[in-house]
Amino acid sequence: MAFRSGQHFVQIPGPTNIPERVLRAMDRQIVDHRGPDFARLTLEVLPAMRELVRTERSHVVIYPSSGTGAWEAAMVNLFSPGDAVLLAETGWFSTLWGELAGKLGIAVELARGDWRTGADPDAIGERLAADRAHRIKAVMVVHNETSTGVASRIADVRKAIERANHPALLLVDTVSSLASMDYRHDEWGVDVMVTGSQKGLMLPPGIGFNVVSPKALEASKNAKLPRAYFDWAPIVAANAAGFFPYTPPTNLMFGLREALQMLLREEGLDAVFARHARHGEATRAAVRGWGLEILARDAREYSNTLTAIIVPEGVDSDKVRATILERFDMSLGVGLGKLKGRVFRIGHLGSFNDLMLAGTLCGVQMGLRLSGVDIGDGVGAALDFLCAPAERSQLTPAFA
Amino acid sequence: MAFRSGQHFVQIPGPTNIPERVLRAMDRQIVDHRGPDFARLTLEVLPAMRELVRTERSHVVIYPSSGTGAWEAAMVNLFSPGDAVLLAETGWFSTLWGELAGKLGIAVELARGDWRTGADPDAIGERLAADRAHRIKAVMVVHNETSTGVASRIADVRKAIERANHPALLLVDTVSSLASMDYRHDEWGVDVMVTGSQKGLMLPPGIGFNVVSPKALEASKNAKLPRAYFDWAPIVAANAAGFFPYTPPTNLMFGLREALQMLLREEGLDAVFARHARHGEATRAAVRGWGLEILARDAREYSNTLTAIIVPEGVDSDKVRATILERFDMSLGVGLGKLKGRVFRIGHLGSFNDLMLAGTLCGVQMGLRLSGVDIGDGVGAALDFLCAPAERSQLTPAFA
Amino acid sequence: MAFRSGQHFVQIPGPTNIPERVLRAMDRQIVDHRGPDFARLTLEVLPAMRELVRTERSHVVIYPSSGTGAWEAAMVNLFSPGDAVLLAETGWFSTLWGELAGKLGIAVELARGDWRTGADPDAIGERLAADRAHRIKAVMVVHNETSTGVASRIADVRKAIERANHPALLLVDTVSSLASMDYRHDEWGVDVMVTGSQKGLMLPPGIGFNVVSPKALEASKNAKLPRAYFDWAPIVAANAAGFFPYTPPTNLMFGLREALQMLLREEGLDAVFARHARHGEATRAAVRGWGLEILARDAREYSNTLTAIIVPEGVDSDKVRATILERFDMSLGVGLGKLKGRVFRIGHLGSFNDLMLAGTLCGVQMGLRLSGVDIGDGVGAALDFLCAPAERSQLTPAFA
Amino acid sequence: MAFRSGQHFVQIPGPTNIPERVLRAMDRQIVDHRGPDFARLTLEVLPAMRELVRTERSHVVIYPSSGTGAWEAAMVNLFSPGDAVLLAETGWFSTLWGELAGKLGIAVELARGDWRTGADPDAIGERLAADRAHRIKAVMVVHNETSTGVASRIADVRKAIERANHPALLLVDTVSSLASMDYRHDEWGVDVMVTGSQKGLMLPPGIGFNVVSPKALEASKNAKLPRAYFDWAPIVAANAAGFFPYTPPTNLMFGLREALQMLLREEGLDAVFARHARHGEATRAAVRGWGLEILARDAREYSNTLTAIIVPEGVDSDKVRATILERFDMSLGVGLGKLKGRVFRIGHLGSFNDLMLAGTLCGVQMGLRLSGVDIGDGVGAALDFLCAPAERSQLTPAFA
Repeated sequence: MAFRSGQHFVQIPGPTNIPERVLRAMDRQIVDHRGPDFARLTLEVLPAMRELVRTERSHVVIYPSSGTGAWEAAMVNLFSPGDAVLLAETGWFSTLWGELAGKLGIAVELARGDWRTGADPDAIGERLAADRAHRIKAVMVVHNETSTGVASRIADVRKAIERANHPALLLVDTVSSLASMDYRHDEWGVDVMVTGSQKGLMLPPGIGFNVVSPKALEASKNAKLPRAYFDWAPIVAANAAGFFPYTPPTNLMFGLREALQMLLREEGLDAVFARHARHGEATRAAVRGWGLEILARDAREYSNTLTAIIVPEGVDSDKVRATILERFDMSLGVGLGKLKGRVFRIGHLGSFNDLMLAGTLCGVQMGLRLSGVDIGDGVGAALDFLCAPAERSQLTPAFA
Repeated sequence: MAFRSGQHFVQIPGPTNIPERVLRAMDRQIVDHRGPDFARLTLEVLPAMRELVRTERSHVVIYPSSGTGAWEAAMVNLFSPGDAVLLAETGWFSTLWGELAGKLGIAVELARGDWRTGADPDAIGERLAADRAHRIKAVMVVHNETSTGVASRIADVRKAIERANHPALLLVDTVSSLASMDYRHDEWGVDVMVTGSQKGLMLPPGIGFNVVSPKALEASKNAKLPRAYFDWAPIVAANAAGFFPYTPPTNLMFGLREALQMLLREEGLDAVFARHARHGEATRAAVRGWGLEILARDAREYSNTLTAIIVPEGVDSDKVRATILERFDMSLGVGLGKLKGRVFRIGHLGSFNDLMLAGTLCGVQMGLRLSGVDIGDGVGAALDFLCAPAERSQLTPAFA
Repeated sequence: MAFRSGQHFVQIPGPTNIPERVLRAMDRQIVDHRGPDFARLTLEVLPAMRELVRTERSHVVIYPSSGTGAWEAAMVNLFSPGDAVLLAETGWFSTLWGELAGKLGIAVELARGDWRTGADPDAIGERLAADRAHRIKAVMVVHNETSTGVASRIADVRKAIERANHPALLLVDTVSSLASMDYRHDEWGVDVMVTGSQKGLMLPPGIGFNVVSPKALEASKNAKLPRAYFDWAPIVAANAAGFFPYTPPTNLMFGLREALQMLLREEGLDAVFARHARHGEATRAAVRGWGLEILARDAREYSNTLTAIIVPEGVDSDKVRATILERFDMSLGVGLGKLKGRVFRIGHLGSFNDLMLAGTLCGVQMGLRLSGVDIGDGVGAALDFLCAPAERSQLTPAFA
Repeated sequence: MAFRSGQHFVQIPGPTNIPERVLRAMDRQIVDHRGPDFARLTLEVLPAMRELVRTERSHVVIYPSSGTGAWEAAMVNLFSPGDAVLLAETGWFSTLWGELAGKLGIAVELARGDWRTGADPDAIGERLAADRAHRIKAVMVVHNETSTGVASRIADVRKAIERANHPALLLVDTVSSLASMDYRHDEWGVDVMVTGSQKGLMLPPGIGFNVVSPKALEASKNAKLPRAYFDWAPIVAANAAGFFPYTPPTNLMFGLREALQMLLREEGLDAVFARHARHGEATRAAVRGWGLEILARDAREYSNTLTAIIVPEGVDSDKVRATILERFDMSLGVGLGKLKGRVFRIGHLGSFNDLMLAGTLCGVQMGLRLSGVDIGDGVGAALDFLCAPAERSQLTPAFA
């Protein structure tokens, strides 16, 4: 590749920019993962993760895996062959999760969606109400659909389950929302949450997480899908003393400790969420300034971690992305599945700030113009928002 | 913990010391794992891995997982519920692999062993010859049993299978031998090899590997165990263009490239194996000098990556280890399973040299004396070996 | 300090952003600076430095020092107490250099300037022509005055000296131009060039350089100022074998090797200069867009590494800078000396690219607005320039 | 060079092994050295340095320089051309310091020594008593002569000056003792202490220090040697607000903060000194075990940071060193000046521990044997010492 001066802009919606401090925390000699020092690290990290997801009674399971592995973990621990689940179709990643479940022998029923709106709590409630036999074992929702930039209202989904008086478990994927947008494991009644290390947690990929409620742990005792590597029970048992039944991703865990220190103790979760809301709003201001369309239809469902933007008819979003990569050394998110060529996605999450966002938006604006798209001055609109008085610029959508 | 000056000695049999260069190669900003630069990295690393394992026709599969995950991957891709396998019982890790297979619904038959010798090719051959119905789908062997320091003769196992004229697949775990002791995937007729990143490859834990022969890939098409995350087929397909169906462990892969550069292009595999043989022999010289017993009974089966040492009756090897950790800041391997308290293990693999070994052996000698064990001068014996003329000190056991 | 998310923007005119690769090259264990490996490093770095400064016959001297130390080195090696020099007054740093010379006992005569234009070759030529007795031993010029963003025409100064038929040595400071703007040591007839590691060379501060022509080396033999640490002769002698008469800055030298590899072998000097010219021009387009005044008066003397911008009457540039640091986490250069409060300086040199510049200019634009300065859309003007067709955007000022 | 596996052993008497934590603290993006964050760093580091050298009233001056630069700094700040100083000749480095002073125009009188003993307080006292005219402006002593492994008794030198009732300043070089052996700036009445970053402070080379008493600062006002870069006055003035009159070595200062944290707050100075005393004694036990001679004659003057060992007649110590480097990848200190070929030096200072020392001594023992030197088992003697009960092994020489 041709030499590139300066910092590459990685503005895909994850993996995200890794803070220097987190990189340095991982850049260290190996430790004995069966020794006392490492046990102390585990016993420091697990409670901090619980604090991050706002649970008091659930267990945080750390897998050496990608997020996909953590998806599978939730499945094999909870279900038996042929079990039915109701999956909210919100976009590409919800679809992939469903396909994975299907490959494992689970009967996946889709609550259909248009990929521009989030999970519909009412539709889910109705379907559950109709399921008198309680054949549906779980409702599966992606909190923040990374392929569309649409967030789903998890608390409302739980309420719909309750109104239907249905015993279904609630499974939530927060891969691209955790540590960036508010997530309340206990309050929202989530049974299993699935996430990964490489987005809001500002780490490289390599850790998959399950956050497992007591109810889910109980349910797993009767699940019949074969499982071994991902089996919660031996992990929960070994974790009590700070150990793992497999070789844990030791260096990543040092990074995780540092990231949690930054999120929980230094910036503080409320400030983290406000920052993401602010950058989400600034990005949307830019899109409006360009005169383009945000893929998400409902302002209440805007993602604060990424924005998917529809390119005008006749424009190929992949060509725009290629131009931006070639001319400005910035990576943007591709349109996935049926959105291929129709949208591109800007990630604005993780270790990020106003000027990184400004540089990002400038790159998009120039790239669109170089691609012959007739647009307005989105950068100007974003800058207006970013230098508005604090009260306004801190505005957060109704939920986030 | 109390402050510790200087370098901690991690002389467990893996994870191993990570070279500075490999740490630095991983200490870098994130990249877009769907972009062209990362694809190039993948297409550089996979052939180098093939070269390392000496295969021309097998596929190397990279999982974000521990070695345990890679064990599971081999199982779910190859077998159907109730399939029988023959597992050579060589120690703790072979036992764990068998338990994992059992949890997944596979019928595991043990070729019993005493944990002091390697897999017995003759016994395996006899068992297969008796299996006229070809119920046994695979033979599973741990190349280098990390719990005992005993290496098994894989080539001889393959010959025994052939002599029995049995179609069983051959599955081999090289977690603690790969890139340290000779391994010949094609020549030895291995169908699936399982390994991890954290030992001879000198990386942190976080990558599990499968090396899959065409025959194994073919067999996987009829395997009925549910699989998704670990499914070879979509990975092999995506790898063709340099991509993965999950988020790959990007930073580890930069480290892997650097480690392969060192192993294949700079030190050279033959020199790597000779170095490990030399350090194995020096360690055994020390054990003899101490007047202690090496767990491995048969000199042809000595591991060159670790040595398990039996402590005298009345001595608790865990206390010796604790003393050494406390007084000399060195971690040694614990006695696992039925060996608990009876042995300790010295790792002498990975990024290692004569003086690191000398320091290690001095720490063991002092720790044994501080523990009241009456021993001779093992260090002196090892130093005599290490400064002997080159021809002698390069002596390698009959196989390795 | 309050927690700051994301990357701090260091847009002072040096020290500059350090590329990851350069940081990693320095992040390594110590070496024996009297051993053969380090000697090889020295013998690799010195010729590459000569190539960078375009000299074939001069010696590059590496000091563990700041640029100030390298200024002093040039003085004590060349002069005797009471020697006269002619210094072009171009701004704060030229003044400091003169003060340093004065403290060492040298008689410094100023070729007066207004801090908005470069050294005046004609005035220098006239003064030298008037110096019939050849009392003036040297002409001292700062190539790129970091306090003003004005570049001086060194080749023209040399021609003026020649026209005056005067034997004065030519001493040039390239602290903020080297490896960013064209510099030709031999062709321009420079006798001693003084620079540092922390700007175009993309390293942390810690190395001061002298590039010493044979004529200067000869002149140093008769110089009577006391000197020891900075004495060229023993350094030149020791360098022949790759060593130093003092403990060299070993880790910085590994970084220097990497930086030279990037500049000379990967990006290429012409591309480096064109990139800086492009970013200089884009920045000036922004200033014009804002309706503000560039401190440099003469377009032929625009610096391509930094731009000093005059704030309107009634505005305190330090308050603007403080607002930008507080709100947008970006450091800009202060107005120095008589420019305090009147200008701020944007550094656009070193490891840098279009989007880093765009983010920088957005931060300045927002900061100016938040400070109540009534400005136009400089960002828009810069983006127009940056996405113009390649021929136009590569335009370089008449000299650079 | 041929590929080398594992960790290179740098057992020269400095630069020393840099702890991972210190390397990581320096491996970070540049900061604005004129900004508030950096000022805070300065104002944290300077008091910690004062604590380290046990002064309450002296100023610590940080130079971007080697130790040689700091030597020169002490000279040019204190003296006028022709001033006389009395220098204790203790070895190669004392001689170099004297030569440097001579080059600067200072009249250096040697208190002659045999390079096997430290400065002789009585001889110094007698010379000063004879100097009725108080022509001698200062006494210069190297605390721990790095070329010989002999420590001088600074407190006794100060007492001798007092007994002679002489106003001479006391200048001490602690380059290879600071932060490893006890040093008490105020209590011992030292006026200027000179040191560097690359030994007990566990940093790369690049910082030279002066610790300047109020009396020395006062004396500097009348000193007439030309000075600018090294001038204390503007540095002391700028430091008050956390700044420097030159570009400071910013990245090294982050490392310095980390090193001071480890030395002062985590290990604690007393433990640091006891550790070095223990390793010094263990090394000397090895030398006795080998049947070789320690260069230092007087047990009260043993250095705890390095040991110089005399090789038998007919043996070339440089060949022994070359053999050890070639065969065991360990760098040892060369015999300097008149000791060339006669001694080699083992550094046992900085970030170091028992097993690193054990590995070092094993390498020396093997290298000596490979060189044909007939020696006993020094390693065994050292191990006996290192695993002796704690009371004995903590024994410190009479002074240290």
